[in-house]
This record gives sequence, structure tokens and C-alpha cells, in this order.
Amino acid sequence: MRILLDCFGGDRCPKAPVEAAVKALEEFGDLELLLTGDKDVLERELEGKVYDKARLHLVHAPQVIGCHEKPTDVVRLKKDSSMMKAIIMLRDDDSVDGMVSAGSTGALVTGALVRLGRIPGVIRPAFCPILPTMDGSLVGICDSGANVTVTSAHLRQFAIMASLYMQNVYGIERPRTALLNVGVEKEKGDEIRQEAYGLLQDTEGLNFVGNMESRDLLSGKYHVVVADGFSGNVLVKTTEGTALELLKKIKKDIFSRTIYKLGALLMKRMFKEEKEFMNYQNYGGSVLLGTSKVVVKGHGSSNATAFLRCIEQAYRMKKSGLNEMIGAEIAKYEHYED
Amino acid sequence: MRILLDCFGGDRCPKAPVEAAVKALEEFGDLELLLTGDKDVLERELEGKVYDKARLHLVHAPQVIGCHEKPTDVVRLKKDSSMMKAIIMLRDDDSVDGMVSAGSTGALVTGALVRLGRIPGVIRPAFCPILPTMDGSLVGICDSGANVTVTSAHLRQFAIMASLYMQNVYGIERPRTALLNVGVEKEKGDEIRQEAYGLLQDTEGLNFVGNMESRDLLSGKYHVVVADGFSGNVLVKTTEGTALELLKKIKKDIFSRTIYKLGALLMKRMFKEEKEFMNYQNYGGSVLLGTSKVVVKGHGSSNATAFLRCIEQAYRMKKSGLNEMIGAEIAKYEHYED
Repeated sequence: MRILLDCFGGDRCPKAPVEAAVKALEEFGDLELLLTGDKDVLERELEGKVYDKARLHLVHAPQVIGCHEKPTDVVRLKKDSSMMKAIIMLRDDDSVDGMVSAGSTGALVTGALVRLGRIPGVIRPAFCPILPTMDGSLVGICDSGANVTVTSAHLRQFAIMASLYMQNVYGIERPRTALLNVGVEKEKGDEIRQEAYGLLQDTEGLNFVGNMESRDLLSGKYHVVVADGFSGNVLVKTTEGTALELLKKIKKDIFSRTIYKLGALLMKRMFKEEKEFMNYQNYGGSVLLGTSKVVVKGHGSSNATAFLRCIEQAYRMKKSGLNEMIGAEIAKYEHYED
Repeated sequence: MRILLDCFGGDRCPKAPVEAAVKALEEFGDLELLLTGDKDVLERELEGKVYDKARLHLVHAPQVIGCHEKPTDVVRLKKDSSMMKAIIMLRDDDSVDGMVSAGSTGALVTGALVRLGRIPGVIRPAFCPILPTMDGSLVGICDSGANVTVTSAHLRQFAIMASLYMQNVYGIERPRTALLNVGVEKEKGDEIRQEAYGLLQDTEGLNFVGNMESRDLLSGKYHVVVADGFSGNVLVKTTEGTALELLKKIKKDIFSRTIYKLGALLMKRMFKEEKEFMNYQNYGGSVLLGTSKVVVKGHGSSNATAFLRCIEQAYRMKKSGLNEMIGAEIAKYEHYED
């Protein structure tokens, strides 16, 4: 198992990915990592760290991607950047199985589409981040930002891909799959949603349970939520934002009175656990489903734990043979999608 | 000031609206209320209550709307239901200024469009619920469900209407108005969003501050968020859902250990305040902006407090002359929207 790690994407680079790389090699005995980025900087970062040198390789990619560069420019002009180098190696080197990057989302999606390509039959790759639910399970949201406009056929493919992902990478049997809508009734939403409802019902491999309202995302009723990239993005970011703001408010209010501070002291461990529970860093990244090889997108603010979980996701996606299963399942319905 | 109150829409009818009516007459000395619904039932519900009988009138509307009736059927066939009767009276009786209903959203929107009509120049009425922000202010989200598909011209009108609403009903000077998108950069989102960005920039009366990401909804950075009805609906319901689920989880976790229970005892008042803070019942309903007379939609689960706040919203909308201001402002840009 060989995975590429873009060490110059994200706010805490290269410290966080390098730290994660060392831990990942400890955790997974059959893993080899290829770190892309400025070789000198990476070597300095690795100095003094203890790891199996035979399983960690450096790939020199010194070009820097600016904050405001257009994705198409990055793909065309920045072939020696840590991200594009990884994408191109992933495409050209048969011995490499996947990649992890916390760099620009737009550049990663465009690069993956243009340089890497899709699983045969897949119309559009889509992001599938996961969130913890209140009953201790997980829910994957697909798409959440790769495609701001979609057709009903896209939505069906997102459902198939995400359902296989939740089943094979997280061990959820027959994931309960729902369509994000403005109400649970079949006739809700626009034409695309109404069409998609029918397609999802007719897809044998799916455990389609109907429309869902966004207020039930964390309830545990669903394992897969199918959405266009625009409303899926709103769904995921609103959840993260609300949880964060609410915990911040509670913290602020605690400091407003001595008696609250006293109470909070007794509940210190609980508050820490709530914070960890809603901390997306603990759940890895947003995998890009449908690309010909495994691609995992880390959050821009990923710390070492988040990078480690991203590497684990890529590892488990490859191990499970997810892409082959997606290809086989999509092929069953491909005639609908032309 | 005469306001119609649909007393047979919502889960807690007619108890909650009738209780709210009595309180509203106390609170607003120049208010008259017209309660629609089954007269016998309403009379029984009012028995023993103390209120100014000269300012409370009953309008007999015995027809019942079933749970699964199609909005168009309700509008066509249920003219003697508590909701449709209110809409028709609002249209026909010049002395009536507005209405409040917590009944079916679809029937209310369709009824308002077909029977009541719009402010001249307004293309589509839109919902604008409000949420509290972490800095103690408010944010209105428009649209949040009346229009699942929109054009950029619609979005501009939503911005104008909601901005005037937040300014005139909540006293927020030059409300900071943002467009819901998947990123803050100007070029983000689909064509509709990109077009809308330009239109909003060119609208003089607006304090347009650019795109916003859903994670910042509660931050206090914005007073008006402009969205299509689909993603706006996701935004509002996800916020409510996440806050509710998180508070439920904290409550459950408190009961898992004695020391937490002890801590929570000291913080009892604080937790109650957090709960009240996020309880949408305290913020009234989702006003329908753009109809020729004032319409306020209460949440289906509205209690007496929520109904009271809805009546207050209708009262303040009428008092402020909001509809006239919307008409005047929209007229300035009407030539763009044809």
C-alpha cells in the first residue's frame, strides 16, 4: 500500500502532515508514504523523528500555489506543486494507490478530473465528509461541494458511491440512505429532487428510505444523505458552525458567574468530550468518491490527528476495494445515465 | 389595527392561539383580533378567560384541512377552513391588516399567491424567519422555503424585502446583507449566484457585504442572508436541528455521572437560558414578505408564546408601513426584473 501525502496544503503545513506520516507508519505496518513538497524543508521537518526510513519517501515538488490562484491555472501551470505532483504521480505510477491533500478544494477537484480521471461510468466525482450522529453512528453527506449543480442521475450515483463507502469503510450494513429535501413527502422539492426520488427507489442495491429534512441530520436516522453540492455544503458547514458557536457561547456564559465556573469544573471532562465529539478533526477528511484512484481531501485547518485520519481513510478505501465495487455497481445503471 | 388569527392550524390548536390572543389584547391596546375556526369550539376555549370582548371577534370557519391534502385542493375546495377564510377576508376586507397562521406551509403560500396577491413589482413572496446570533443580534434568512427554484432577480428582491424588514421591524440600521454561497469569493457558486452577486452590488439601498458561508450564520457578522428556498430551508433547519440535538446530548451526558449531575445543578439557570436562547418559539414565526397584506407563518409546533410573537410580528410589520416601503424600493429596480 503506497499513499501520497501532499505536505504543503493546509494551514499547518508541513508540521501537521509530517507528524501524521510518522504516526501512520507506526499504525499501519504495510503502509508506504510518499511525501510531496519542498525536499529540504521536509528533511528538516523529519530531523530527529524516529520512523521506518524504508517506508517513507520524499518527492521534490517545490512550486508554491498562491491563495487566490484559479484552479485551472494551478492544474495547467503548477505541475511541480506538492498537490499537482501528487495527482500526476497517482495517475502515472501503478504502484501508488491513493493520495491525501488539504490544499485548495477547487484545484484538487479540477486536478483530479482533468489529470486523474474517473471510475468508468461515473459522471461526476463527489465529496463525502462524515459527521458523528447522536446514537454513536456516522452519517456521510454526498455531495458536499464538488458539484454546485446536478441532475437526478448524478444524485443517484452519489447515493450508490456513498452507500458503498459507508458500508465498506465504516462497516455499516445496508446504510439507510435519504435524499436531502425541504420535507419528507415524495412530491417535495424541485423537479430534480422529484426525479431523483424515483431513481433512488428503483435502485436495488440501495437501502433508500425517502426524503429527509436537514434538522434530522444528526439524529442517527440516516447513514447516507444525498444532496447537490450546494445544499450539501450548506448542510455540513451549518452543522459544524452551529455546534462550534453554541459550545463557544456556553464557554463564554460559564465565565460570567462564579457558580457556573464551579459547576463547569465538575463537568470539565464532559465538556471536553462534547468538544471532541463535534470536532471534525477527529473524523478525517472529505473523501472524493468516483475518481479512478483514491483521493482524500483534508480540511484546510487539519492538524496532525486529522491528517492521520485522512491517511487511514485512504488506506481503508483502497484495502476494501471500494473503487472496483463502485465501478461494478454503477455499470448496472449506466444505461439510464446517458 | 385588525389582525386575523387562524386558530385551527398547528399542533396545539386551538388552545395555544386562543391563549396568545388573550395575551396580545393585553399587550397591544390598539389591537383587534379576528379568530377564525369552529365558533363553538372557540367559544368553549374562551370561556372563563378575561379579555376585552369588544376587541376579539370570532369568524366561523368549520371546514377542516387534512394532513395530506394538496395545497391547490385546499385553496380550491376549503374556502370555509380557518386558513382560507382568513386569507379571503384579508383580501376582501379593507379594515383588516394582516393574518397569522401555523397551518400547512404549502397551502398558505399557494393561498396567499392565488387569493391574496403580491405587492406590485414583487415577483415572488418569500419566507424570512429570524435566528438569534451570538453577539445578541438577529439574522433573517430569506427565502427559506417558499421558492425551491429561483433566479438572480428573485434573490435581489429577497434581499431588498428582508433588509427593509430587519431595519423597520427590528430596528437594525443598514442591515449587513450577504448571499449564501459555498465560499466567500465572488466567483463561487452557480450562475444564478454569480449573477445575483453583481445585482446585489448594484443595488444602492442595500448594505451588501458579499458572499457568506453557512458556518458563519450565527456569528453576528450578518443581519440578512439571501438564499434560494431550498438551501435557505436547509440552513435554518440544520441550525435548529444541530442546536437541539447538541443540547439533548449534553442533557443525556449529564445524567451519565453523579458528578456531572452535581455540576449541572449549579449551572441549572445557565442551561435553561441556553435552551431558551436557541428555542425558536421565542422568536415568532417566519413572515411571508411580498404579499399585498401582512402574512405571518407560525411553526407547526407553535405554543402560546410563539403565537403571541407571531401576532406581534404582524402588528409591527403593519405599524412600520413595511409593505409600502417594499413596494417603493422594488419599483426602483423593476425594469431589471422583467
